Amino acid sequence: MKKRITFKPGSLKTYVSEGETILDAALGAGIHINSSCGGQGLCGKCKVFIEEGEIVSEPSDKISDEDYKKGVRLACNSRIFSDCIIKIPVESRVPDKILIEKQTLTKGERKIAELETRSFVRIWCFNPPIIKVFLKLDPPTVTDNKNDLSRLLRKLNDLYLIRNVSIDVSCLRILPTVLREAEWNITVTLEKIYLDYDLGVSAVETDRIYKIIEIEPGNTFKNQYIVALDIGTTTICGQLLDMFSGRVVAEAATYNKQMECCGDDVITRIVFATTPGGRKKLQQEVIVSVNEIINELVKKSGTSKDHIVYIASAGNTTMTHLLLGLESRYIREAPYVPSASFFPPIKASELGIDVRDNVTIRNFPAVASYVGGDVVAGVLGSGIFQRKKLTLFIDIGTNGEIVLGNSEWLVCAACSMGPAFEGGGILHGMRADVGAIEGFRINPVTLEPMMITIGKARPRGICGSGLISLLAELLYSSIIDRQGKFVRDLNTKRVRQSDTGYEYVVAWAEHTDIGKDIIITEGDIENLIRAKGALFAGCITLLESVGFSLEEVDHIFIAGAFGRYINLEKAKLIGLLPDIPLEKFSFIGNGSLMGARLASFSQDMFREGGRISSMMTNIELSDSPTFMNNYVASLFLPHTNADLFPEVSKKLLESEKITKKERGLGE
Amino acid sequence: MKKRITFKPGSLKTYVSEGETILDAALGAGIHINSSCGGQGLCGKCKVFIEEGEIVSEPSDKISDEDYKKGVRLACNSRIFSDCIIKIPVESRVPDKILIEKQTLTKGERKIAELETRSFVRIWCFNPPIIKVFLKLDPPTVTDNKNDLSRLLRKLNDLYLIRNVSIDVSCLRILPTVLREAEWNITVTLEKIYLDYDLGVSAVETDRIYKIIEIEPGNTFKNQYIVALDIGTTTICGQLLDMFSGRVVAEAATYNKQMECCGDDVITRIVFATTPGGRKKLQQEVIVSVNEIINELVKKSGTSKDHIVYIASAGNTTMTHLLLGLESRYIREAPYVPSASFFPPIKASELGIDVRDNVTIRNFPAVASYVGGDVVAGVLGSGIFQRKKLTLFIDIGTNGEIVLGNSEWLVCAACSMGPAFEGGGILHGMRADVGAIEGFRINPVTLEPMMITIGKARPRGICGSGLISLLAELLYSSIIDRQGKFVRDLNTKRVRQSDTGYEYVVAWAEHTDIGKDIIITEGDIENLIRAKGALFAGCITLLESVGFSLEEVDHIFIAGAFGRYINLEKAKLIGLLPDIPLEKFSFIGNGSLMGARLASFSQDMFREGGRISSMMTNIELSDSPTFMNNYVASLFLPHTNADLFPEVSKKLLESEKITKKERGLGE
Repeated sequence: MKKRITFKPGSLKTYVSEGETILDAALGAGIHINSSCGGQGLCGKCKVFIEEGEIVSEPSDKISDEDYKKGVRLACNSRIFSDCIIKIPVESRVPDKILIEKQTLTKGERKIAELETRSFVRIWCFNPPIIKVFLKLDPPTVTDNKNDLSRLLRKLNDLYLIRNVSIDVSCLRILPTVLREAEWNITVTLEKIYLDYDLGVSAVETDRIYKIIEIEPGNTFKNQYIVALDIGTTTICGQLLDMFSGRVVAEAATYNKQMECCGDDVITRIVFATTPGGRKKLQQEVIVSVNEIINELVKKSGTSKDHIVYIASAGNTTMTHLLLGLESRYIREAPYVPSASFFPPIKASELGIDVRDNVTIRNFPAVASYVGGDVVAGVLGSGIFQRKKLTLFIDIGTNGEIVLGNSEWLVCAACSMGPAFEGGGILHGMRADVGAIEGFRINPVTLEPMMITIGKARPRGICGSGLISLLAELLYSSIIDRQGKFVRDLNTKRVRQSDTGYEYVVAWAEHTDIGKDIIITEGDIENLIRAKGALFAGCITLLESVGFSLEEVDHIFIAGAFGRYINLEKAKLIGLLPDIPLEKFSFIGNGSLMGARLASFSQDMFREGGRISSMMTNIELSDSPTFMNNYVASLFLPHTNADLFPEVSKKLLESEKITKKERGLGE
Repeated sequence: MKKRITFKPGSLKTYVSEGETILDAALGAGIHINSSCGGQGLCGKCKVFIEEGEIVSEPSDKISDEDYKKGVRLACNSRIFSDCIIKIPVESRVPDKILIEKQTLTKGERKIAELETRSFVRIWCFNPPIIKVFLKLDPPTVTDNKNDLSRLLRKLNDLYLIRNVSIDVSCLRILPTVLREAEWNITVTLEKIYLDYDLGVSAVETDRIYKIIEIEPGNTFKNQYIVALDIGTTTICGQLLDMFSGRVVAEAATYNKQMECCGDDVITRIVFATTPGGRKKLQQEVIVSVNEIINELVKKSGTSKDHIVYIASAGNTTMTHLLLGLESRYIREAPYVPSASFFPPIKASELGIDVRDNVTIRNFPAVASYVGGDVVAGVLGSGIFQRKKLTLFIDIGTNGEIVLGNSEWLVCAACSMGPAFEGGGILHGMRADVGAIEGFRINPVTLEPMMITIGKARPRGICGSGLISLLAELLYSSIIDRQGKFVRDLNTKRVRQSDTGYEYVVAWAEHTDIGKDIIITEGDIENLIRAKGALFAGCITLLESVGFSLEEVDHIFIAGAFGRYINLEKAKLIGLLPDIPLEKFSFIGNGSLMGARLASFSQDMFREGGRISSMMTNIELSDSPTFMNNYVASLFLPHTNADLFPEVSKKLLESEKITKKERGLGE
């Protein structure tokens, strides 16, 4: 049940889930409430006044008994259990005029793809790569003494019109015994054999070819699970799909163990792979992580590993190489040539994955060294390949991967954004982990911040979505200018000069978990501008390469686990994402996993993945002069060419005008 | 260079190879020369007189100096080096009139398939299951930085129109390194993937699907060998086929090691396989034998095991089960159901065969429990499936396997002949080994024998072909009657009565290697009659089952390593083979190996094997009343129904008449 909150002064209403804190609700609604401790109830700055409604608050020494009786509470530790009216105290208030398009800055966040089992693909049918079939065979007689296998195949043909069936020798070895012990009632697991490889067009009706990979006594028809995996450089995510019910029954995620020993990014890992034993070690580490995921999935769902019949996996090109033990050296050496873009299926047990011997693992095809199977899976999940209109797909991470096209053609590019938006190279940057500031606002008058951390813990640093918010708010509040430089002589202690230059204090030491001020420096801001500039320049270059402009883009899909926490308006404000209407954006979350899941439910979709990989033209940006020009032009907030950001520019101009006036600097 | 020999008296001429002994030449030409010691020069009975020609003889104390000067020699140790004229002494001579159709009794022997690389198939094209291709790839550039595998596949398509190619992960792992070390010149081994399984008709154009199973630096195009195997219950034969030249470059044979530990026949082995660890042990033993064969083939041909790219194998149903480690128990239990009739391909190394990891071993499909892949391969090699006219295929062994049909239809049956013709259950029966009497004649007047042993050693026993000869000669010389009983009161010491009944002394103790008389008893003869009766009854039953008679048979193929040593006329005389003209018979030798070889050269032919297996209808004889009637009628020499053996009966009547006259018993 959603609860309605009315914020006063004004009458902004928003709807939140029962139990949500007032601070969260305000952040979501675009209401500023001062707060410095990330929502821990320590700074006591987020006081609000409850006019009406059922609110449950934790006790706090920041509120006097007298105030408490008046209805004063800390927004961060007060949870909403009914419709309510909340008054924002004067010290938190932002002048109404500055609240331009109040809601728009955050409303993008509400579009997060909630249902992970859903994809954006319009047309697909349930046609998994594995089927289980229960069969009652006729026992042989003197007049019908065909061999066991022929009896089995005959029944498959008679009942299901399944022909062209081969069998794994290991199954044939047990067949006679299982048949007789189970009194001729068995369940057969059939794998559909794919044959369409690299060259795309296949002369073969692949649906017609099967291999028996398991024979079980009795009816085990209901026990068939597929594991869908997203093998990320940092994180490995898995889902257990119940092929009988067609549902996701468990989810799990873990860090890629390769990080502990072999470096944080793909380049370091490729280098590690060239050391003696390195390739083997990297493979072992990722397999340990995969086995962890599988164990957790099985545990959560209460099933058995023996019921896993297939694994579908998607990962970037390097991760797929390392998983399969392929040579990755040439991915990072010009002209950036991977071993393969299509990867042959392999028995998972041969890689060390702890499932039944006959379980196949199949990896999504890649496009190029830096456009991998994760992007192909994402493109699949997003359904671009079925859309007639021009669509842009953006996967934000250390590499920004961009795909542009429709059902007829697809071009793609990877641009090295660097790790800034993942917290790398930023003084107080950090991963999206407990204590990371993820939501952030600045009161443009007092220049005081409002923040929320992951886990509502004391702030430890700033994660990617927090950095986007922070940068946008600094700009929007005219604390920095469009080149990312701090405005001098502002009436706040938060902007100060240190040995290394100007900086803004995000959180004072007393409110942080790290015992010192959390700051953002001009150097940090430069790094962020370079990162967002690379991504935007990539988009523009890709568009230009096929003769299109931003206005012609019908829809943008934002993928990546990180992507789903981005505040769209703020991302547009800093020029990270194109300035096109919000309704043209969709978050698809972990697109890689979405694609792997889709391919598990439908082998046609896996084949579409192959087609997508084949049809995608990779544009190499690293040596492109066009890209370099676009990149340089993007090193500005939002961009040197204001025409590319019409709405954002208008908004910024207006806010600058108001701010100047407020600060007494106006005309 | 063949040499001409003229035998006197008379003027029978025959042609033999240089260096052949006179005894061999005489036996081949149907000339009787007394001899008792198997050709060792011990009995001194085979004296002949050299009238003309260059003959090299070993010295012998059986010939006086005086005789030597006159030109007297032992036929068994005198070798022919020029055209010559040989006079047979009076004591060896057979009355002219008894030499009816002198040559016909032996001329069948000359029809042995001499060239093992030849088959009887009329139409087939070279289309091996493996091809090697040398490729010069284009190194990647910035403008063409497709991945390594795609570059390889692109070249395969451009040069050879080879599409739909998959790759073994192990090859993909080494691909980048091999490519660069070999400066982009590599040889690729492609395996054609078969997809047509049990149900016969395939919707798939199988020729179009390939898998890369080996990547080698440089040009190794010429190094491609296939091993063709015949896995027999007793003997394993192999050939090494050079796929570059299209020739057989080496042959080898060895005993199946299963014999040593696990019994002589398939039934004993199946029983052994049901004991704990038995199945594993049997598999290991046959693999040891296969590895021996491969080592020998490689050694003989001077190549390397690494150049073997494929193994094609044919064996009876039980042998194939044991090779693959399948459950064989139900083969021998009614209703005689094997695990499978089609066997999936498997990596040879998984079975323990010592070749490269990616080498596939493929077994010929079987038809039923007692009609195996060896018969299918034989039928393939014989080309029956391409013949329009009615053809009979007979594989003689412990089991007689019979196939009847043409290009439209095929029926088959197995009849248990028992081991008699392999020397089993015969007092002095033995395998075709050194010292085994293989050629045999009796002088119908003196009743003295002429014999040749394998290896020209002192006789140790009688092998299959010797037993056929012996039985035929006993009958033809009226030493036994048509029921196989000894004629009483003959004027010879060789027929005598012992505790167990009448018997004929084939070789006196003094001439044998075993220190006692080699004899054949009435009991032995009964066993032989039962064996030949079973085979002949099988043929007749099979013919009757489809409404044909013997006269309608256009051709008969005799298969089996044993088959090629059979004297056709003698086999007809005793009723083992049908009484149809000699020119309708062909020996195909080891049909199983011939089929395996053919399938190695042509994957279409392997698929024909699959079609043959599918189209063959197996007639179960063991419980058939028709078969039992036919069997009982066949327990006579040659048969109770003389009309079935018109020529043979005429010949026997004539010889009986003459013999009676000679013995003074005539009208």
